[in-house]
Amino acid sequence: MDLNADLGEGFGVWRLGDDEALLSVVTSANVACGFHAGDPPAMRRVCAEAAARGVAVGAQVGYRDLAGFGRRRIEYAFGDLRDDVLYQIAALDGFCRVAGTRVRYVKPHGALYNVAAVDEAQAAAVVAAVVDYDRSLPVLCPPGSVLAQLAAGAGLRAVGEGFADRGYQPAGTLVPRSSPGALVTSLDEVAERVVRMATASEVVAVDGTVLHLPVESICLHGDTPGAVDLARHIRAALSAAGVIIASFKA
Amino acid sequence: MDLNADLGEGFGVWRLGDDEALLSVVTSANVACGFHAGDPPAMRRVCAEAAARGVAVGAQVGYRDLAGFGRRRIEYAFGDLRDDVLYQIAALDGFCRVAGTRVRYVKPHGALYNVAAVDEAQAAAVVAAVVDYDRSLPVLCPPGSVLAQLAAGAGLRAVGEGFADRGYQPAGTLVPRSSPGALVTSLDEVAERVVRMATASEVVAVDGTVLHLPVESICLHGDTPGAVDLARHIRAALSAAGVIIASFKA
Amino acid sequence: MDLNADLGEGFGVWRLGDDEALLSVVTSANVACGFHAGDPPAMRRVCAEAAARGVAVGAQVGYRDLAGFGRRRIEYAFGDLRDDVLYQIAALDGFCRVAGTRVRYVKPHGALYNVAAVDEAQAAAVVAAVVDYDRSLPVLCPPGSVLAQLAAGAGLRAVGEGFADRGYQPAGTLVPRSSPGALVTSLDEVAERVVRMATASEVVAVDGTVLHLPVESICLHGDTPGAVDLARHIRAALSAAGVIIASFKA
Amino acid sequence: MDLNADLGEGFGVWRLGDDEALLSVVTSANVACGFHAGDPPAMRRVCAEAAARGVAVGAQVGYRDLAGFGRRRIEYAFGDLRDDVLYQIAALDGFCRVAGTRVRYVKPHGALYNVAAVDEAQAAAVVAAVVDYDRSLPVLCPPGSVLAQLAAGAGLRAVGEGFADRGYQPAGTLVPRSSPGALVTSLDEVAERVVRMATASEVVAVDGTVLHLPVESICLHGDTPGAVDLARHIRAALSAAGVIIASFKA
Repeated sequence: MDLNADLGEGFGVWRLGDDEALLSVVTSANVACGFHAGDPPAMRRVCAEAAARGVAVGAQVGYRDLAGFGRRRIEYAFGDLRDDVLYQIAALDGFCRVAGTRVRYVKPHGALYNVAAVDEAQAAAVVAAVVDYDRSLPVLCPPGSVLAQLAAGAGLRAVGEGFADRGYQPAGTLVPRSSPGALVTSLDEVAERVVRMATASEVVAVDGTVLHLPVESICLHGDTPGAVDLARHIRAALSAAGVIIASFKA
Repeated sequence: MDLNADLGEGFGVWRLGDDEALLSVVTSANVACGFHAGDPPAMRRVCAEAAARGVAVGAQVGYRDLAGFGRRRIEYAFGDLRDDVLYQIAALDGFCRVAGTRVRYVKPHGALYNVAAVDEAQAAAVVAAVVDYDRSLPVLCPPGSVLAQLAAGAGLRAVGEGFADRGYQPAGTLVPRSSPGALVTSLDEVAERVVRMATASEVVAVDGTVLHLPVESICLHGDTPGAVDLARHIRAALSAAGVIIASFKA
Repeated sequence: MDLNADLGEGFGVWRLGDDEALLSVVTSANVACGFHAGDPPAMRRVCAEAAARGVAVGAQVGYRDLAGFGRRRIEYAFGDLRDDVLYQIAALDGFCRVAGTRVRYVKPHGALYNVAAVDEAQAAAVVAAVVDYDRSLPVLCPPGSVLAQLAAGAGLRAVGEGFADRGYQPAGTLVPRSSPGALVTSLDEVAERVVRMATASEVVAVDGTVLHLPVESICLHGDTPGAVDLARHIRAALSAAGVIIASFKA
Repeated sequence: MDLNADLGEGFGVWRLGDDEALLSVVTSANVACGFHAGDPPAMRRVCAEAAARGVAVGAQVGYRDLAGFGRRRIEYAFGDLRDDVLYQIAALDGFCRVAGTRVRYVKPHGALYNVAAVDEAQAAAVVAAVVDYDRSLPVLCPPGSVLAQLAAGAGLRAVGEGFADRGYQPAGTLVPRSSPGALVTSLDEVAERVVRMATASEVVAVDGTVLHLPVESICLHGDTPGAVDLARHIRAALSAAGVIIASFKA
């Protein structure tokens, strides 16, 4: 099982999350590429540290929206979104090369993640960027999402991802942050859910429904208080359950 | 002799210069990379057109300053400038790869061009970015400049560049745009100067001094009225003088 | 009848439209405020020229999206949109004061114009900004739109606006730019339509339906070839029909 | 004696410093206006909180440089800098009006502060913006600086400012952050220095020279660990010394 988290999400003087600590827990680092967060010096630093620790680097691509941190849906034209995504992947790949590694996968961020999960046009733009840049790059996305389907249809590898501390709706989508049950806050419950995802490909939805959720990676959050402790707790619980922690393969 | 010009210098809805027409004249296209001008869709478009015509693509790297078009000196820290430059080269290289080509050289834009010609710290940052990204990339800059010296010292190839329609001071630097003699406006005089640069490595300064100016490339401007006509006139004059027009080799 | 057009829509070195010429035709200038276009020096210049000619200045407020020119829908949170709009109005008002005048009205730009015409949340954010900043400012918008209704409900004056060269659907909305009939290209037809709007409050939709369209202002476009000629033609036609050309009153 | 600190210096999701806590200590709040930091929702929030507590709001104007936090010198043209400064003052004034107050003074931020203290052109641009917007606004700056002189010459009130925890050079300028003695770290020493500034208009430079430093305001830093505690300590020490803490008057 792969553990991924968002890293390098500061900008200029501003910081978000504890990159150093998270890099000691995760196996995949989603590095922000400068459009919704991230700047060149941070990209260099995180790529170098990730490479030194053997953590895989992925391009965390987002809308061009620093003020909104990429969390606001933007109605991009297809070509504009495709090219904005490609630009970000290529820029990050430059810092990966400097660090002796390469971009290993692509994960959309924030609103682009949510929109591409259900919207054909935006999903197709993300897929087109990856196909154009490097067909060997997997795309990290919700299992069964529109993005997963289009990626697979284009010959890309779609890697299914589950969320450690988020509630699921019966349809398999996440409970919106504004609704009850959006966040699972008990450390033990989070650990138990993650182990079940990893060993049985299952998660229990807010209404009690048992969902089939075939994931190869689990997303940890890094920007909340206690995030690093939670991440360590999850990793320990998975190891205790005999799950091998390693980045997914291309 | 190589002929280069700045291309892809619009942003969003805004356009500057006639990319199409210039691509029919030049042998090297300095493509803006998004920090002082240029956006991903334009970068894709210009790279594709340049590749289709056999025009070499160079990374026209600049300060992060859309509002100032990269024409205002900014006192960057060394690492910040190095990483901003590397980010731009890598991003453009992504679109070059999509177009079946690669970035072939690096040329600083605007204030960065002028500052790196005389300032060791900024010149060193540009050189460090190129060394980090790809040591085989030449750097286009004024012959004998600090940037040319540092590039050569780091094992990079420095390609000397002359300006077709700009006046030179006796010291070999350009006459500032705000001073008399900054621009040579007569078509015939421009053509004659360019032919002399190409065949004798000489240019006559504003005070009549004959300067030694060993250039491998001549910079044409694309954003002024009549720019394309001037470019065609220069190319024709060089051909008539028996000068072979071709991009410089790495 | 008031004639309005978008002005000051460049950014940095980039220009769009012919501000000077349009100022000689219109009675109201929608000045871009820096978020989708426009920059402080242009705002100062256009405000000064408008004031000198007696043209009313309005705040052309838009999404924070230079790369998309404010033409892409963005799903703003209510407070963020309200505050982005208020910021723009206040900034422009600063340059109006310098020019001896004041912002006289507010007109949303691009996607914000279209979204606020039908979406309650975004319309309410625009209205809240105007109410907060200055309740005496009218809002320029389509007659009968959601924005017009919410503005009126909040005690603001909604000024209905018609488009000189755009086709209308039977429901009173504009024919999308991607559909047939989106643009009326004949000078004479445009003039005839504008005169009918001004004298009979009517416009003929693409299917022949005669629509009631009570407008106090007509929007002229400035960024297309021939725009200024068209604007002059319209103004002359209105004058010939006995329509008094003057900015609307607060 | 006035106590001022920088507030509202986040951007989007990013935060810097503890605005709430500082507002309970200072008498003047330098609010970032969106060019080097700050965004409209934060500006509204800080203005409302400051107004509720009776803290004076000043426009903390900076270069257009989010990535560099306004700390990198930029060589602006005079008119561009004047208009960027005026834009920021006016935008902040909009949120002050909403909060029932007004912008009470102007303080340049970061590199603009340092450059305008010694550079006539940039100082003149700041002064021109204030003169254009509202001649009654004081300018907060180092006593005796070029900015102070030009402001006074233009009929503006220049308010001299001292730094609580920064070392001074014998010439009266600050010890650069990269040099020894740049920061005074002992709480007691900082308090003693501030009391001496307030009661005797003196500060001891790093070489022991006693400088005359006629200040009406003391700048507290808010973005360092322990900043709020230090601020409270300073305020308490001043009160204990019988110094009345109040914002300066226009």
